[in-house]
Amino acid sequence: MEIRESWRRAADRHPLARFVDLNLRGASQVFLQNNPLTGLIILVAVCWGAIAGRVPQAAIGAILGLVLGTVTAMLLRVPREPLRDGLYGFNPLLTGLAVPIFLRPTPMMWVYLVIGVAATTVVTLAVGNVLRTWDVPPLTFPFVLTTWLLLLGAYQFARITSGALGPPTLPHGVDPRAAQVHVTGAFLTPSLLKDVSEVFLLANWVTGVLILVALAVNSLWAAAVAVAGAVVSTLVALVFGTSGQAVAVGLYGFSAVLTAVALGCVFYRPTWRVALYTLLGVVVTVVIHAALNTALSPLGIPALTAPFVFATWLFLLPKRDLAPTTHRELPEHDIVDPRVVDERRGRPS
Amino acid sequence: MEIRESWRRAADRHPLARFVDLNLRGASQVFLQNNPLTGLIILVAVCWGAIAGRVPQAAIGAILGLVLGTVTAMLLRVPREPLRDGLYGFNPLLTGLAVPIFLRPTPMMWVYLVIGVAATTVVTLAVGNVLRTWDVPPLTFPFVLTTWLLLLGAYQFARITSGALGPPTLPHGVDPRAAQVHVTGAFLTPSLLKDVSEVFLLANWVTGVLILVALAVNSLWAAAVAVAGAVVSTLVALVFGTSGQAVAVGLYGFSAVLTAVALGCVFYRPTWRVALYTLLGVVVTVVIHAALNTALSPLGIPALTAPFVFATWLFLLPKRDLAPTTHRELPEHDIVDPRVVDERRGRPS
Amino acid sequence: MEIRESWRRAADRHPLARFVDLNLRGASQVFLQNNPLTGLIILVAVCWGAIAGRVPQAAIGAILGLVLGTVTAMLLRVPREPLRDGLYGFNPLLTGLAVPIFLRPTPMMWVYLVIGVAATTVVTLAVGNVLRTWDVPPLTFPFVLTTWLLLLGAYQFARITSGALGPPTLPHGVDPRAAQVHVTGAFLTPSLLKDVSEVFLLANWVTGVLILVALAVNSLWAAAVAVAGAVVSTLVALVFGTSGQAVAVGLYGFSAVLTAVALGCVFYRPTWRVALYTLLGVVVTVVIHAALNTALSPLGIPALTAPFVFATWLFLLPKRDLAPTTHRELPEHDIVDPRVVDERRGRPS
Repeated sequence: MEIRESWRRAADRHPLARFVDLNLRGASQVFLQNNPLTGLIILVAVCWGAIAGRVPQAAIGAILGLVLGTVTAMLLRVPREPLRDGLYGFNPLLTGLAVPIFLRPTPMMWVYLVIGVAATTVVTLAVGNVLRTWDVPPLTFPFVLTTWLLLLGAYQFARITSGALGPPTLPHGVDPRAAQVHVTGAFLTPSLLKDVSEVFLLANWVTGVLILVALAVNSLWAAAVAVAGAVVSTLVALVFGTSGQAVAVGLYGFSAVLTAVALGCVFYRPTWRVALYTLLGVVVTVVIHAALNTALSPLGIPALTAPFVFATWLFLLPKRDLAPTTHRELPEHDIVDPRVVDERRGRPS
Repeated sequence: MEIRESWRRAADRHPLARFVDLNLRGASQVFLQNNPLTGLIILVAVCWGAIAGRVPQAAIGAILGLVLGTVTAMLLRVPREPLRDGLYGFNPLLTGLAVPIFLRPTPMMWVYLVIGVAATTVVTLAVGNVLRTWDVPPLTFPFVLTTWLLLLGAYQFARITSGALGPPTLPHGVDPRAAQVHVTGAFLTPSLLKDVSEVFLLANWVTGVLILVALAVNSLWAAAVAVAGAVVSTLVALVFGTSGQAVAVGLYGFSAVLTAVALGCVFYRPTWRVALYTLLGVVVTVVIHAALNTALSPLGIPALTAPFVFATWLFLLPKRDLAPTTHRELPEHDIVDPRVVDERRGRPS
Repeated sequence: MEIRESWRRAADRHPLARFVDLNLRGASQVFLQNNPLTGLIILVAVCWGAIAGRVPQAAIGAILGLVLGTVTAMLLRVPREPLRDGLYGFNPLLTGLAVPIFLRPTPMMWVYLVIGVAATTVVTLAVGNVLRTWDVPPLTFPFVLTTWLLLLGAYQFARITSGALGPPTLPHGVDPRAAQVHVTGAFLTPSLLKDVSEVFLLANWVTGVLILVALAVNSLWAAAVAVAGAVVSTLVALVFGTSGQAVAVGLYGFSAVLTAVALGCVFYRPTWRVALYTLLGVVVTVVIHAALNTALSPLGIPALTAPFVFATWLFLLPKRDLAPTTHRELPEHDIVDPRVVDERRGRPS
């Protein structure tokens, strides 16, 4: 607690410490948290997963994206408060991470990545201004939109080629044999942890554990809700009979984990009604994920976190009508770190 | 008239009668009407068409969707007035109808249907809040969006399979021989009636007759405009040379019928200028319908009533600029039942 | 100067002169200018390019679209000021130009064109009302949306057939040999001029020269920025390795030229910061162009000026946050003709 306090004082005084602080908060904002320690552990988790998965360039891209995106935001003279909360850091971080995972790491790719990161910051401002009309945050949509454009564009450029995309195909039903899964603890445990790590496009259970630790450091409740989101989405995907292989690497869970955290503990005060509403939101996230997999199949690009974004928007937008039952204020019981909720008000919504 | 009056008094007093009343109004709102008797006849028409077409599960799904969607809206504590006008009933009704028509009626399909119906209500609230900015109603878009997601998602689930979808194909021009149609009364009459019945995804001329009766009960003008919409759209589709088979089963008319009712007698006061404007709107609906058939062909999903929604939005949005020539007030001549227009003001716009 | 003054007086007094004046301004608004002489030269340039390219019907369609679109706007009683500035002319002009370029010039095509032109005006009003919320102009989006719908629809109509579309294919990488370009002045000069002429879907360097003259008549700065946009986008496309054939006919430059003019001299006051921002905007336009080429490939329709529209929107929307650094007021140095900026305020934003 004392270390936190002295770090906060340092960040208030020294520009460099402040810059490090807001970048770390940016990393934590991927999971809608606002805590530099959470961000630090998340960056360690991403580096571990990238190196273990033999894509170290993804870790470099993530950190480059985080820093360059923040610097771009500063050059564009964005408002001070959301900048300090890391709200201009998480989308460029994800763009910087995704580009080297899907495209071959040539020098030209790094040029492309830098352009994409700067564009992500502009898109964040644009989308934020549009969504402010309805008091809804951009979430990770600026990352999704920019990365989709970069990946679709790559098909037209001979010097920017894909390592892991496509090939584009017309949609076809899933093979029933692929849906035959022998569900055991040995199958479920790593796949649930990968649901968490796949938020960063990495299928690594250690990364998943580290991210849960990072969440728990800021809010035990957030970590618990994340796990619940992974469990529910995995069960739904298995019951409906999606490919067991996709479930095993966490591909049906990562968006649902984010939806659960967003609806279940960040934007609504946790109550039984909200828990049921979040449950429906998580199930709908799985359906949207499946729908986007089908819809994007002829284009040969991945859904990224779009299912989380679309589902969360749909479940946040009714909030005016739901006013008496929901709110964004501080929960009365202290499971959620007050600072989180407090500081999130700085979000440009 | 007396029966109507006593029914209205019963609905005011008894909760169960009120619940039945608002569900029947919900059924009538598919055609932008607000009249329980119209809704009742429409439900009979749907049941007839579903049983005659050997998809009785579609009738069950429609009624289940109507009731469950309304209940979901109540659980979400939506505003009272639009609830009573049936504005939270018609979209879930259509979702509940569409799912068993396009997917095989397994037990898992019914689970999927219930999730989809609940989601439709959330989407209705979300879309309504977004569109309120421009004073435009959601129309049937919540049904269209939710059903598209459910059908696209089904491609990824081995236990939810399609009976009547796809297969996805790249677009190709229509065969000129398919456009050779010998236009006779015997060809035109049933296809015009199916234009009306296809609003409920059923190609059944008796259903079409019953729906026209249901409209006429509430507003002769609405029934007349619906027929005019069917005639114009059928002629346009034939003149441009679309497939005669598609025209015969009403596939180019149902969205146009709804556009005609929306522009020609619900949202604008009928005048000569509005009649011409509606005529252009109906023709544009046919073009949008053709365009969506092409655009959705690689995804293997149907256009549903999206052409109606998009065309009507495009022709309602200019209304601020058109202010002196249009309005939503009570027409002075009494062709349109005053209650309809009166009560539609309760619509959450 | 005196001729200009006497023309303006004539336009104020005589309805016919006013009608001609606002149509000429409409032609100039394709390049975001507001000057009847610029419009006149642009129309000459389009006629030249259409005749030289053996598509004279495109010139007829353009003029028909301009006049009919303006008349439709008058019938819909649009606000007076933007009408006089030509803001209801440029989108229908482009629709009228595009339809005969992509579809075979049969009598039925002309019917289709007239419907499309009238629809473009309705879409302009609709899109303008939506975008007014964020103080962003429709740009050429009404043309893009309407033309996409017309071209997609044509696939379903046997009597409206395509001359120059498709065929729809799944996306695939560009052949590295196609990206081998021997960049010389003889390659670059015509391709840069075609970047300008392709705004009107014509690959003709004389048309490009005439359009630059038309721009210079109104604003030397606009002409210079247009050339800079062509140079930058061509270099970016070549460096990333797109097909040399596409660059040669100007296919990667025309949207970027418009983005450069919009961001670099119309909507923001030219400063070094704005120049860098515009540079990023032009690069992003090229990426969006490539992305749309991929995304539209399964539908067999062209990107048209959508990359310009989407990039410019993304770079205009942050302007509230950028308030201290940007503005729309009169530049202090007189490179930009004051009347342009002055009169553009009449734009319905």
